[in-house]
Amino acid sequence: MNEQASGPTLDEIVALCKRRGFIFPSSEIYGGVGSTYDYGHYGVLLKNNVKNEWWRAMLTDRDDIVAIDSAIIQNPRVWEASGHLEGFSDPLVQCLGKCKKRWRLDHLQEAIAAEGGDPDGEIRCPQCGGELSEPREFNLMFKTHVGPVAESGAEVYLRPETAQGIFINFKNVLSFSRKKPPFGIAQIGKSFRNEITPGNFIFRTREFEQMEMEFFCTPDDASKWHEHWLGERMRWYTELGIRPDNLILRPHEADELSHYSSATSDIEYLFPMGYSELEGIANRGNFDLTQHMKHSGEKLEYFDQATGDRYIPHVIEPAAGVDRATLAFLVDAYEVEEVDGRERTVLRLHPKLAPVKVAVMPLVNKDGMPERAREVFESLRHRIGAEYDSGGSIGKRYRRQDEIGTPWGITIDGDTAVDDTVTLRDRDSLTQERVPIDGLAELLLEKLAADWTSPKLDA
Amino acid sequence: MNEQASGPTLDEIVALCKRRGFIFPSSEIYGGVGSTYDYGHYGVLLKNNVKNEWWRAMLTDRDDIVAIDSAIIQNPRVWEASGHLEGFSDPLVQCLGKCKKRWRLDHLQEAIAAEGGDPDGEIRCPQCGGELSEPREFNLMFKTHVGPVAESGAEVYLRPETAQGIFINFKNVLSFSRKKPPFGIAQIGKSFRNEITPGNFIFRTREFEQMEMEFFCTPDDASKWHEHWLGERMRWYTELGIRPDNLILRPHEADELSHYSSATSDIEYLFPMGYSELEGIANRGNFDLTQHMKHSGEKLEYFDQATGDRYIPHVIEPAAGVDRATLAFLVDAYEVEEVDGRERTVLRLHPKLAPVKVAVMPLVNKDGMPERAREVFESLRHRIGAEYDSGGSIGKRYRRQDEIGTPWGITIDGDTAVDDTVTLRDRDSLTQERVPIDGLAELLLEKLAADWTSPKLDA
Repeated sequence: MNEQASGPTLDEIVALCKRRGFIFPSSEIYGGVGSTYDYGHYGVLLKNNVKNEWWRAMLTDRDDIVAIDSAIIQNPRVWEASGHLEGFSDPLVQCLGKCKKRWRLDHLQEAIAAEGGDPDGEIRCPQCGGELSEPREFNLMFKTHVGPVAESGAEVYLRPETAQGIFINFKNVLSFSRKKPPFGIAQIGKSFRNEITPGNFIFRTREFEQMEMEFFCTPDDASKWHEHWLGERMRWYTELGIRPDNLILRPHEADELSHYSSATSDIEYLFPMGYSELEGIANRGNFDLTQHMKHSGEKLEYFDQATGDRYIPHVIEPAAGVDRATLAFLVDAYEVEEVDGRERTVLRLHPKLAPVKVAVMPLVNKDGMPERAREVFESLRHRIGAEYDSGGSIGKRYRRQDEIGTPWGITIDGDTAVDDTVTLRDRDSLTQERVPIDGLAELLLEKLAADWTSPKLDA
Repeated sequence: MNEQASGPTLDEIVALCKRRGFIFPSSEIYGGVGSTYDYGHYGVLLKNNVKNEWWRAMLTDRDDIVAIDSAIIQNPRVWEASGHLEGFSDPLVQCLGKCKKRWRLDHLQEAIAAEGGDPDGEIRCPQCGGELSEPREFNLMFKTHVGPVAESGAEVYLRPETAQGIFINFKNVLSFSRKKPPFGIAQIGKSFRNEITPGNFIFRTREFEQMEMEFFCTPDDASKWHEHWLGERMRWYTELGIRPDNLILRPHEADELSHYSSATSDIEYLFPMGYSELEGIANRGNFDLTQHMKHSGEKLEYFDQATGDRYIPHVIEPAAGVDRATLAFLVDAYEVEEVDGRERTVLRLHPKLAPVKVAVMPLVNKDGMPERAREVFESLRHRIGAEYDSGGSIGKRYRRQDEIGTPWGITIDGDTAVDDTVTLRDRDSLTQERVPIDGLAELLLEKLAADWTSPKLDA
């Protein structure tokens, strides 16, 4: 889909992320390294909050899911069984002329068709005009070699998804966790894909972080649980502030489905480049466990003592991207508005996601205000994410805190010394109220725990 | 050093970790993949607590450190500048006979010397007796290829440490964060080393997680800050329950120091295999920033506007391993004792590190106790890490909770229906007291926030 997004452009998001140190190109002093990004201070805090909220939804709010953290480098037979060694590839042609560059054949054909040419005719290298090789498969897994033995014996791959690390531990978890279907195993971790065409900032990168959960159930209950997880995952995004209008649930067409999946729906978000996949929720049937049974010879079945049934559990998989979710939260929160004739940029992040919950600021750096502000800051910092901010004029500091999405600002001014109150500023409504210092932490914790909806919903 | 540890054997720790699903061999159904491990449910919770406590010590408790999360795959010129491409290697010999296996030359020589032979004489392959090659350097970095261009142009490496991702972002962080020396940049993330001899469970693995912080200061203050961080890091371990008797601070000898370091001390822990490095705290001088200046051409200096000084900051680096720290906490907490003529195994983990803070258990699964226990559990779960445990006899459940290190157990029994009280059992003292359900969450949160010292200190 290519709906025009009415929100910020990707360039605006990239600029804010760089300006405030959320996210910036990796290895920049050496000219970068493809589409790879590093997260700065506020980016780390935001991303950690996204991950914590996912763990909360999976572990704290439920009883039927356990956590796992499996290795990135696994036995290569895992990828034989999963089909990644065979199927996880794109047809590439390589320039036989000067530049030796590889191209995705389908992209070259599309470009020619778009210009009115014949995509099935002879195609030359777009860079140097050289002849092109026959198309061949290009594996999207990164290969490396492990251990001090001869190279041939120790080829391994960086995992292209966290999911297989869950399937191969199904039996372990069954025996350790005392769980029985329906139950899930959840994991957060990095995956790697040698993408031909990474791009759109942190939307598609070769190194990325996933939040995947595999939910094991009886074959009969699979459709029911698929519905359940579609609802749960949509709710997760909207409860954390994504506007429902910007989300769609798109069921895969029959010809789009993976061969193992009986049903998959993508949660798509209206990114600046149009609706794009935020999370896929697949009914994978018993494909994965069956494959690993065949390849490992282990019995990956469940025997239900109550009913006497023995079966290979079916699997529902909500697979989300940490970086994509982070990008969606940033895009959805971004707003430029006019306030008193001046433009302000604000990130209306859900307070639970905001990198900093409260900024504590002396109005000016004199008359005892900095000392008093430090005191207030010290009383808050171990109870709620706080930042002491004394740099620049108060207006400049508000703008800075608005841009990093800090929901509350506390200003210590001349009256504070008189009546022990401070000004509490709300990022979204811009209201400023006098509140007593006494009870400030409790007041803020109460606000943080309260339900929250994006003020942009009313707009 | 090879002091005999009086604590548990490594086999006992491995067995507990497997039995309770903390940590187990990776890719087990395919026969594993070298010394690689997966973390199960309680292992993930414990490891996350270790990481959270490190972030707390670096970010929440101080004002002079910011976070970063840099990519694993970086521009290869980073490793040229850092010296890892040249220097990060061991001399290996390869069997020219049948088995083609590679060996570390120094290990072969040591083995021969240990048996009274001449280490400088001719050495044959210990496996097949074949002739051995001349020694050659073996790079410890994992190499792979990125992107759809010809292989030669796109060799990249998996980072062998997180530290360089900090140095190359020094300039970025200076401009975003409004920090000036002395200040630090902290990072947690995976690193990879193609170790010749991984081993000792999760002590040395090819894929591991680091917690590294680079602290930038003036050249004059470097020694002072080195002392500061030695103290801070020792304190971190002991405040989280490691017994001071099991820790030593070992300054590197002159011939042990890296060429760039003017002083390094290791915090060593008395692991079952003897004192081994837990964390290195190095005074790296200005080596890294200087190297990256030379190789990138960027000015990585700091200009102090107040004094007019321009200088390349010196760096103090506390570099800890997440997996090693986790192993040390497990070893230190492990105890087998006799209670009423029966043996019990208990993990005396600091409550802040314990995977589960409180287990809520019906005494028996009838007479309304499970329903009441669920109610109590529901009132706690969102405020403190709780687990509902109703499987097996109460004695069996206590043993299980002791083995995963749960500091408090709450039992709902026949009296609960009468007087709204429960039994609160303490993991360490084994005391059981009746406490009212009303105020239970507050009581537990108070205990969790209180100072804690290992009861083994009194033993």
